[in-house]
Amino acid sequence: MVKRIAVLTSGGDSPGMNSAIAAILKTAARYNVKVLPIEQGYSGIFSSEFVRYTTHWPYNFDSQGGTILGSTRYPEFAKEEVQVIAKGILEEENVDALIVIGGDGTYKGGYELHRLGLKVMALPGTIDNDIAHTDYTIGFDTALNTIVESIDKLRDTAASHKRCFIVEVMGRHCQDLAYYSALATGSEIIITNTFVPTKEEIASEVAKQFAKGKKSVVITVSENVLENLKELAQFIEKKTRITTREIVLGHLQRGGRPSAFDRILAAQMGIKAVEALIDGNSGLAVGFKDGKINFTPLEDVFDTKITDNAKIIKQLSKINQS
Amino acid sequence: MVKRIAVLTSGGDSPGMNSAIAAILKTAARYNVKVLPIEQGYSGIFSSEFVRYTTHWPYNFDSQGGTILGSTRYPEFAKEEVQVIAKGILEEENVDALIVIGGDGTYKGGYELHRLGLKVMALPGTIDNDIAHTDYTIGFDTALNTIVESIDKLRDTAASHKRCFIVEVMGRHCQDLAYYSALATGSEIIITNTFVPTKEEIASEVAKQFAKGKKSVVITVSENVLENLKELAQFIEKKTRITTREIVLGHLQRGGRPSAFDRILAAQMGIKAVEALIDGNSGLAVGFKDGKINFTPLEDVFDTKITDNAKIIKQLSKINQS
Amino acid sequence: MVKRIAVLTSGGDSPGMNSAIAAILKTAARYNVKVLPIEQGYSGIFSSEFVRYTTHWPYNFDSQGGTILGSTRYPEFAKEEVQVIAKGILEEENVDALIVIGGDGTYKGGYELHRLGLKVMALPGTIDNDIAHTDYTIGFDTALNTIVESIDKLRDTAASHKRCFIVEVMGRHCQDLAYYSALATGSEIIITNTFVPTKEEIASEVAKQFAKGKKSVVITVSENVLENLKELAQFIEKKTRITTREIVLGHLQRGGRPSAFDRILAAQMGIKAVEALIDGNSGLAVGFKDGKINFTPLEDVFDTKITDNAKIIKQLSKINQS
Amino acid sequence: MVKRIAVLTSGGDSPGMNSAIAAILKTAARYNVKVLPIEQGYSGIFSSEFVRYTTHWPYNFDSQGGTILGSTRYPEFAKEEVQVIAKGILEEENVDALIVIGGDGTYKGGYELHRLGLKVMALPGTIDNDIAHTDYTIGFDTALNTIVESIDKLRDTAASHKRCFIVEVMGRHCQDLAYYSALATGSEIIITNTFVPTKEEIASEVAKQFAKGKKSVVITVSENVLENLKELAQFIEKKTRITTREIVLGHLQRGGRPSAFDRILAAQMGIKAVEALIDGNSGLAVGFKDGKINFTPLEDVFDTKITDNAKIIKQLSKINQS
Repeated sequence: MVKRIAVLTSGGDSPGMNSAIAAILKTAARYNVKVLPIEQGYSGIFSSEFVRYTTHWPYNFDSQGGTILGSTRYPEFAKEEVQVIAKGILEEENVDALIVIGGDGTYKGGYELHRLGLKVMALPGTIDNDIAHTDYTIGFDTALNTIVESIDKLRDTAASHKRCFIVEVMGRHCQDLAYYSALATGSEIIITNTFVPTKEEIASEVAKQFAKGKKSVVITVSENVLENLKELAQFIEKKTRITTREIVLGHLQRGGRPSAFDRILAAQMGIKAVEALIDGNSGLAVGFKDGKINFTPLEDVFDTKITDNAKIIKQLSKINQS
Repeated sequence: MVKRIAVLTSGGDSPGMNSAIAAILKTAARYNVKVLPIEQGYSGIFSSEFVRYTTHWPYNFDSQGGTILGSTRYPEFAKEEVQVIAKGILEEENVDALIVIGGDGTYKGGYELHRLGLKVMALPGTIDNDIAHTDYTIGFDTALNTIVESIDKLRDTAASHKRCFIVEVMGRHCQDLAYYSALATGSEIIITNTFVPTKEEIASEVAKQFAKGKKSVVITVSENVLENLKELAQFIEKKTRITTREIVLGHLQRGGRPSAFDRILAAQMGIKAVEALIDGNSGLAVGFKDGKINFTPLEDVFDTKITDNAKIIKQLSKINQS
Repeated sequence: MVKRIAVLTSGGDSPGMNSAIAAILKTAARYNVKVLPIEQGYSGIFSSEFVRYTTHWPYNFDSQGGTILGSTRYPEFAKEEVQVIAKGILEEENVDALIVIGGDGTYKGGYELHRLGLKVMALPGTIDNDIAHTDYTIGFDTALNTIVESIDKLRDTAASHKRCFIVEVMGRHCQDLAYYSALATGSEIIITNTFVPTKEEIASEVAKQFAKGKKSVVITVSENVLENLKELAQFIEKKTRITTREIVLGHLQRGGRPSAFDRILAAQMGIKAVEALIDGNSGLAVGFKDGKINFTPLEDVFDTKITDNAKIIKQLSKINQS
Repeated sequence: MVKRIAVLTSGGDSPGMNSAIAAILKTAARYNVKVLPIEQGYSGIFSSEFVRYTTHWPYNFDSQGGTILGSTRYPEFAKEEVQVIAKGILEEENVDALIVIGGDGTYKGGYELHRLGLKVMALPGTIDNDIAHTDYTIGFDTALNTIVESIDKLRDTAASHKRCFIVEVMGRHCQDLAYYSALATGSEIIITNTFVPTKEEIASEVAKQFAKGKKSVVITVSENVLENLKELAQFIEKKTRITTREIVLGHLQRGGRPSAFDRILAAQMGIKAVEALIDGNSGLAVGFKDGKINFTPLEDVFDTKITDNAKIIKQLSKINQS
């Protein structure tokens, strides 16, 4: 039986992390298990940023964006001697289990503590949807809605002036934000690391779309794929005489209140993580695949490559440019 | 091979219907198949409300709430002679296939036309999530977000004054809006047709929640389960001395721009429906189950009862009242 | 010179109260004046709910709905002996000035403390816009936007089905929410305490609007003006054959993050209140009229009746029913 | 008496332009005056883009962003011979009055047509708030809310990681979007054309803010004031060890559904413009100052320089950096 579960968030924040934390607190209370929230990720273990009372937390923190526990980069945690010390500190706090919420790097830290004998569960908290063995990560749906609302706004202006907008969205190792948002907004051209047309091809497609009667054209681009969006905009404008502007949505995509989907996903994952620990499990990543919560050994998660979502690409090719 | 696909929406409108219509238009164009949108549901067949040109439709209709095709109740369509006439009218318009978007009643009409020899596909357009063989209906996610945002607002006031709110949400035959929104908002008490506590039990639970230190309590109630919310509010207030107010979200839940999830669901379903018709299929309901688009014979859909979502209820019991 | 300013919110909460509190804290800090926030309104004086440190307040409380200080009804404060005790308690806390944020009743309490010698300033925190000598109260703009967004959603459904909606909005002594929202949404019929047509007249106007080609009709009603909205809806439906539904927006209008306008209004008023106290003033209500912050002796504010906004009514009569 | 009023939008689109168009159509109908909407601004006069029937316009176009009439740059309109031809074309269409909605350039075109004898009224449609003799332009409030919501989202991430964000907002000749949004969001540093601190001063202020305990710092910058935001971010990061990111909100600020305030402002201005024409006026700009609609001769509007909002700057200096 588990005595005291520590919780931390690490890596980039994502909307819904707070919903997961709230579900962990409530579920543990239900099973009479104590919880020790840790602030500032793995580094907080060393600076003793332990939250001993949560009574001062805002009543609605679970519906707020970001993470109430904060998050700090802490590359030193890759060293084994640092991990050993961390485990010792946690044991002194009577902690025998840990739930980490974050992305790839967060999972690696959790895995090492699991190997050292701590009971560990990991939740996918990242807007990028770049974790293997889960269809959705916590925060992805909210970020998607932020992109969709932003492109809706840009279409208002684009259609008023017959313009083209180049919109850069997030997604380092995974292009799901680009693909899904393109499907949701009818983006006419999608540029990702697996499909990078030439400037001439892009301009030609823009011209073709307006020739067909479109009042606006949106080009969705994944981050880090094109070097100079301004230059591309100017090239398109020169070639097609269509006014073209670029916009980088950037960190706007990270914040905001979590969507219903993200809150529900986070709540379910938080509940399952606590129960799995109580049942004696460790070293598992909680995911949501094919409509169900699943568990995958941590080493299988960060070993697996993310492949592009073939289904959605096929669908996009069927509708967006027609 | 299909020549011309008619499309209509019927029953209550739901956000995302327009996204489905747009996907159908685009996919058909891609395959060089003609489309004939019909206004005002089944009744529009008889009043010849055929949309011969869609060029005047707003550029962004796919991101708008409601249905651009309108919808009218038409109980007469239950009669076989009326169905036969409808098929004849559609044939004269060179229509050999039909996609219907709506709920239960819509599906029945589509099934009868399929039995008469028309090729028919049905898409689940309803906020109630009450269609069998699909995990989600088009519009459910948007309605859920509307409820969640509304309860977030009510919590602001409730927490400022230490109050209790009774919130009635939609869902005639299916209580998913109640269950999912309760999980997303941490609603303290959930009342559905399968769980109706007495007034005394409700008041006692409200008192218990405030005694534990809660600053606000939200009671979620499915429509048609309790007769008089005002009376319940007054009873709670009298018993607990906690100011209690009721609110019926009602039709607010139907409108609004579709969420990213609903747009993507609708687009995928629209694409698949057109392709299934082209492949020679008929009499099928398009669903989304276990993370994948599926097809179910129409007669199996409206024969199947909706059972309450056992999983989510179990989760709720674990966290909301703790 | 003022030594320590107490702050409290009282009466119904309104979005922007927190922005005002934040501005008061920051401005006082700028002038090296101490602040003592008091929780739960006037009653908090007696239960010593003094906030001695605000370091645990959420970083973004100023952008949140409701009031972080809470608010409790306290009718006992109408008695002079209670007011005298309150003043004594505040003096023991070294408080020589007080800013109260709320409506009519809040102002009265503040006025009495001013008469007893405490330096008092009052800020209009109410969504109803029912305070004299100010064009806008803190929270009015946010509530207005909530109503407008709600009616936008209802129009989606109404236009899809050619329906009529009756929408009840807040506003006890003042009908501004009804008038302004009607102007913003093109509501076809407005019913307030100064204009209550008969059921027959309403039904006839609804029929006329649809006859002119309107796809939806919205009837805006101020609270407490009509007794039974359901009955009216049924009457209209029977007379016109137009499906008609009623919705009471209720407490939805109170919550939510404050709009930009409300935050700016609240910030300006908060700054001015602190400066006025420092300058030696007392017994004044802060308002915003003709584009400028103004000050009015408290006794003139609650003596003045609110008259209906003649200008906006005239404008409505010019456009909404045409 | 006026026979037929033409309406056009010109220059950049702004939310609320559609509300103004709707109010003009309704008010003219009320007075039995015909309206001829013209698409694509002044250039539409020459390409005969006259909207003879508005029946196909979406039922809710007045609540949509952008402008349903479109807008095209047309520098040729600066030539007198082109203006004379335009007036001739309008006269052939029986048009004796014109309402133009837009910014500075739009007003100049309207003024020239007024000098040639056409009756002209101008409405301020621009998010920049850079028109003289009006406190607010149509679209300013919506853009402000978009900025505020964006910065709220950025604060979620900033506070989770103790970060600094540099946010560039629009406003070519007028810095109101920067000043007002800074007041609404508590932006810690504001950089406009009248106040450009050195990189060192900025970094030092960022460090000071975090030293005081702030969890996030937002630097608001007006467009065209700083050349290289990325460089500034890197400089701050290097000097302070605070992770710093830049974001350019850009065209996001233009789109979106108009706020209640913008709809009401636009409706009032639209009504007054039609009535002023009917009363025989011409050559006037409609504004809103000191809480009232006003009229100013067009030549006084574009001759007047916009001065910085001294009041709001003073307020900012009192609270944001304290």
